[in-house]
Amino acid sequence: MSTVFEFTIDAECSESWARAGTLRTPHGTIRTPIFMPVGTQATVKSVSPEELKAVGAQIILSNTYHLMLRPGSQLIDTFGGLHSFMHWDGPILTDSGGFQVWSLGHLRKLNEDGVTFKSHLDGSYHTLTPERVMQIEAEIGADIILPLDICAPYPCPPQEARKAMEQTHRWEERALIEKERQRPEQALFGIVQGAFEPELRSESARIIGSMPFTGFSIGGLSVGEPKATMWEMLRYVTPELPREKPRHLLGVGSPEDLVMGVGLGMDMFDCVLPTRVARHGGLFTRSGRISIKAARYRTATGPIEEGCDCYTCRNYSAAYVHHLLRAEEQLYYRLGTIHNLRFMLRLAAELREAIITGNYIAYRDEFLERYKPASE
Amino acid sequence: MSTVFEFTIDAECSESWARAGTLRTPHGTIRTPIFMPVGTQATVKSVSPEELKAVGAQIILSNTYHLMLRPGSQLIDTFGGLHSFMHWDGPILTDSGGFQVWSLGHLRKLNEDGVTFKSHLDGSYHTLTPERVMQIEAEIGADIILPLDICAPYPCPPQEARKAMEQTHRWEERALIEKERQRPEQALFGIVQGAFEPELRSESARIIGSMPFTGFSIGGLSVGEPKATMWEMLRYVTPELPREKPRHLLGVGSPEDLVMGVGLGMDMFDCVLPTRVARHGGLFTRSGRISIKAARYRTATGPIEEGCDCYTCRNYSAAYVHHLLRAEEQLYYRLGTIHNLRFMLRLAAELREAIITGNYIAYRDEFLERYKPASE
Ligand SMILES: [Zn+2]
Ligand SMILES: [Zn+2]
Repeated sequence: MSTVFEFTIDAECSESWARAGTLRTPHGTIRTPIFMPVGTQATVKSVSPEELKAVGAQIILSNTYHLMLRPGSQLIDTFGGLHSFMHWDGPILTDSGGFQVWSLGHLRKLNEDGVTFKSHLDGSYHTLTPERVMQIEAEIGADIILPLDICAPYPCPPQEARKAMEQTHRWEERALIEKERQRPEQALFGIVQGAFEPELRSESARIIGSMPFTGFSIGGLSVGEPKATMWEMLRYVTPELPREKPRHLLGVGSPEDLVMGVGLGMDMFDCVLPTRVARHGGLFTRSGRISIKAARYRTATGPIEEGCDCYTCRNYSAAYVHHLLRAEEQLYYRLGTIHNLRFMLRLAAELREAIITGNYIAYRDEFLERYKPASE
Repeated sequence: MSTVFEFTIDAECSESWARAGTLRTPHGTIRTPIFMPVGTQATVKSVSPEELKAVGAQIILSNTYHLMLRPGSQLIDTFGGLHSFMHWDGPILTDSGGFQVWSLGHLRKLNEDGVTFKSHLDGSYHTLTPERVMQIEAEIGADIILPLDICAPYPCPPQEARKAMEQTHRWEERALIEKERQRPEQALFGIVQGAFEPELRSESARIIGSMPFTGFSIGGLSVGEPKATMWEMLRYVTPELPREKPRHLLGVGSPEDLVMGVGLGMDMFDCVLPTRVARHGGLFTRSGRISIKAARYRTATGPIEEGCDCYTCRNYSAAYVHHLLRAEEQLYYRLGTIHNLRFMLRLAAELREAIITGNYIAYRDEFLERYKPASE
C-alpha cells in the first residue's frame, strides 16, 4: 500500500457548498461526490466485486463491528487484508464499530477507556477502546478508517450530548496517536458528533476539523430525526471544516439525500438503503421509488426504467424481474440491487457533472421536483 | 426457430454402451454426454445466464408445471417464449409437468383424458391432458419438450405399474399428434416408464422407441429406489432404444450417476442435486463431496478444489466461501452453485473426451474409486 492520499477540488458551485473533487487512495482514485455501497460482512449483499465495478462503484464501506466478530480481523489479516479476502481491489473505508455497538450490541458498559458489549451473534464479550479499534482496522487493512466514537440517541438531552461529544473527541485524539503506531499509511478520518445541538455541532466540527485527520465523517445523523433537522445540523458543520479535506456523511444515502447533501458540502455518502429496499422490491427511477412487486409489472415488457444502462435493464423486462421476486428467486435480489446501485452511482456522476458545468442548483431542483421518495 | 434437429454419434465405447454425440438444436449445438442445469422457475437458482455460459452449460431444463402456474405459459408466449423471457439464448428442454403433478400437486384426479390437480401455490384447480401439455409447452417454446406421463411410485405393485405405463403410452401417442398441430418444429422426446419391472421397462422402451420421437427420456427412476435397482432398469431399457437417437435420464445427475449412467448408454442428464446441495454447503471435489461449513475451512487459504477452473476457485479462498455461508450471505449461494455446476460440466466434458479417446472404462473406475458421494 502506497502512502499517497491526496484530495483535490476540481470545481465548486457558486450558489451552494457543492464541490467536485478527486481523492487519490492506495487502491485507486475516487471522483466525488460519490456513493459508497455497503459491504457489511465482507460482501455487498447479493452482488459480486465485478458487478460492483460494472455499476460504477469506486469505493465500498465495510463494518468493523461485523468483521471483528466474524470472521475476525486477525483472520482477515492472515489473508492479506480485506481487499484480498473479499476479492475487491478498489478502495475500502471501514467504520469504527461505534455505531453498531450501540445499535446491535447488548449489555453495553461505557467508561473513559472504552466500551464493553456482548456480541449479537454468540453472546461473547468484547471490549473496544480507541486503541483496539485502530489495531482491528489495521488488521482489516482498509484505505480509509474511522476512530471509535459515541453516537448519541435521538432525542438526546443537551448535557448528555455534550458529554458524549467530548468523550468522542478525547477518543479521537487517542486514535490519532495509536494509528501512527499501527499502520500510518492508512487514512484516518475524524468523526464530527454533537447530536442535534447547533452549538455542539459547530464546536465538534471546529475541534475535529483542526486535528490532523485526512478527512471528516459526520456521524450521529439519520438516527430517527426529521430530515430537516439533519440538513440543519450540516449547516453548522460544513463551514467549520477545512475546505481542502474530504467530507463523508455517515450512513446517509437515499437518492434525495445524495442530491441534498452535496449542496451542503458533503463529498462521500454510504447507506444500506439502496441495497436493502431493492431486496424488498423498492427500485429507484427518476420519478421515484417503485414497488416492482405491484401487479402492474406482471406484464411490463419494458425495463425497470427506460434508458437505464444497468445490466438488469439492458437484459431483462420488468415483468421478468417481477416474476423473480414473486417466486422469491435469488436472482431477483441481485438484479434489483444492481439496478439501485447503478442508479445511485449514475446519480453521483451526474451530480459531479452538474457541479463541474455550473448546473448543480438546477439539477438539484429538477431532481427533487420529479423524484417521489416513497414507493408508489 | 429453425426446424433442424440432428443427432450424430461421434464415438462409441467398445466395452460399454457409452457414446459421445452431437445434438443440433435451433438454439445451438450440444456435445454429449451433457449435464443440464435445472431452472425450475425460469432461472437456475442464484446464477445468471452469463454465469451458466461460463461454467460450460450447453442446455438447461425448465419445469412446465412451475411455469404454467407462475408466471403462466401465455405470459411467457407474449414475451417471445422462455429464451427471451429469461435471457438465455441456448437450448432449453421443458419436462411435461407430469412428475410435479404427482410430487407437488394436491387432490389429484386421474382419468383416461388427463389429470386434475390443485396448485401448491394458491389452491387453484388445473387440468392437464396430453394435448393441453403440448399447447403449454408450445407457448413456453423450449427446443425439446416432453409429453404428459404418469410416474409410478416406488414401490409399486406390478399390475399398477403396467396400468400406468400403458396409459402413459396412449398419452404419448396423443401428444405426438397434438404436437404436430401446435409447433412441429419443437423436438418431442418420448418418455419410457415401467416402474421397477424389467419386463415393463423393456416393453416400454420397445414401444416408445418405435414411435417417431426425436429422442427419449427415461422417467420414473431415482424416486427412492436403491441405486443398483435404477442401474438394473437401464440395462433393460437401453438395448431396446434406437441407437441413433439421444437418450435422457430424467431427474438423475449426481457426479457418480453421470459417470455410471454414461456407461449404460445415457447421453443427457438433469438434476437439481448439484445446485441444491451447493446451497446447503455440499461442494463437489474429485475426492468427494465436502461440507464447506466445516470448521476446518475457516482458515483454508486455498480454493475449494486445487486446480478447479471455476470463477469461485479462481478468485476466492475456501475460507471466504466458508465465511459467506456462515454469515448466510447471498453471494455464497452463487459461488457454491457456480463451483458445483462447473464440476458437473467439466465432468461431462471429461467423460466425452474419455469416450472419444477410448478410455471411458478406466476413467469411470478411477473416478468411482476416488469419489466419496456423502459429505465428509
Ligand atoms: Zn436498471
Ligand atoms: Zn471451483
